[in-house]
Formats: sequence, C-alpha cells, structure tokens
Amino acid sequence: MSERTDDAPFAYDGLERIFHEKARLSILTSLLGQADGLPFAELKQLCGLTDGNLSRHLQILQDADLVTIHKGYEGNRPHTTCQLTENGRTRFAEYLSVLEQVLKNALPATEDNHSMFDGLALKST
Amino acid sequence: MSERTDDAPFAYDGLERIFHEKARLSILTSLLGQADGLPFAELKQLCGLTDGNLSRHLQILQDADLVTIHKGYEGNRPHTTCQLTENGRTRFAEYLSVLEQVLKNALPATEDNHSMFDGLALKST
Repeated sequence: MSERTDDAPFAYDGLERIFHEKARLSILTSLLGQADGLPFAELKQLCGLTDGNLSRHLQILQDADLVTIHKGYEGNRPHTTCQLTENGRTRFAEYLSVLEQVLKNALPATEDNHSMFDGLALKST
Repeated sequence: MSERTDDAPFAYDGLERIFHEKARLSILTSLLGQADGLPFAELKQLCGLTDGNLSRHLQILQDADLVTIHKGYEGNRPHTTCQLTENGRTRFAEYLSVLEQVLKNALPATEDNHSMFDGLALKST
C-alpha cells in the first residue's frame, strides 16, 4: 500500500483508523452489499449497536464522505436510510485488501507449525 | 464467536481491542511464524515502529500473557528477543478467524455489484 511495504512488510499502513474501528467495520461491512442502503433500525440490529453509538459512528462516516444519511418518512413515521457513497465503497475496498494481506501473512505461518487454521478458507496465492 | 452472532451477524464481538490495534496486529502477525521468536530490532523493522512504540505495545502484550520478552546478551551487547506465548498463539488465532469472517461477509457483497475485489484470493465457502 505504500513505499514502506518493502522494508516494513507488517506495517499495514493502509489499516486506516476510520475503517479499522470495530463498530465502523460492522457498519461498513453491513452496508457494502446494499446498493439501496439500509434502514437505521436494521443496521442497528445487524451491528449490535445502541442508537447512540450507531448515530455517533454514522456521523463520523458521513463527515468523511463515506456514507450518506437520508432522513425521510415512511407513512408518517420518521425513516432514516444509510448508504455507502462511491468514495466509501472504493476506500473501504482498499482497506479490506490490506486486511486480506494480514490474513495472507498470518496463514502460512500457522500452517507450518499448527493446525488451528484448518478451518480457514484463504487460498495461498 | 458469541450468542450475538445470530441476531447481530456483523457485530464482530471477537475483534478484541488488544489484538485489533494496528501496531499490535503488526507485532503479532510478525511473531506468528517465528517459533523461536524475533530480536527486538528485527521486529521493529518488520512493523515499521519506533523503539518507544514497539516497547510500549510489547509491554501491553506481555502484561496480557500474549508475548514473552527475554532480555539477554549476544556477546557483550544487550539482545532482546520477543516470542508469542501459547496463550497468545491460541487467542490470536481466534481473533484472526473473526477477521476472516469480516472478509467473508464483505466479499460476496462486492462480487455481486463490483469487480474491485477481483484481486482478492478468498474462496467463497
């Protein structure tokens, strides 16, 4: 991901904090497959977050142009929909490719000496 | 990883902070394949960390019984070796299996709608 890869192959510079934070990782992974976004209530359940925590992290993601939050109505009830932006989708994919590199680095090491990773599904490429 | 998996499949409770922090992820991934541990200087280079940062995170990992730090001499020069404990190896493997779940959740979503993950090597299982 950077010029440090050669001399610091385990530095993982691409693990940007805005994506790496656990609750935001939950939110972004939930939204990734949802081209039309997800209702706030559904997102909250999928991520196991409280209203306050979800709101706080969505605000951070919106401020960074990674998600949009649309506040509308369904009938006469407030209905909030959250959606990844194209920028969010692209940058989160870059983050995920670094996460995959972590697993690629880890897997051969464990295969040599241990069998606890037998269940993992990563191909060695 | 917990009873929350069914109703909050994206909660990732197993992403424990002690492993998820980026510098510690670098350190533990570096040590994973090294049955005899690594010298401090080599670990520092692999992770792209400063002396101070590496020392601080190693102390946290040692306090949690995840690594051992052996301070000895090579000739008459101080020589510090860092090594994963068996507890560290087992618990880090559990963390990595949750990390793999993140990628498994993300990959089908991106494959359906986008081609940016073509380079990823995860099998869909």
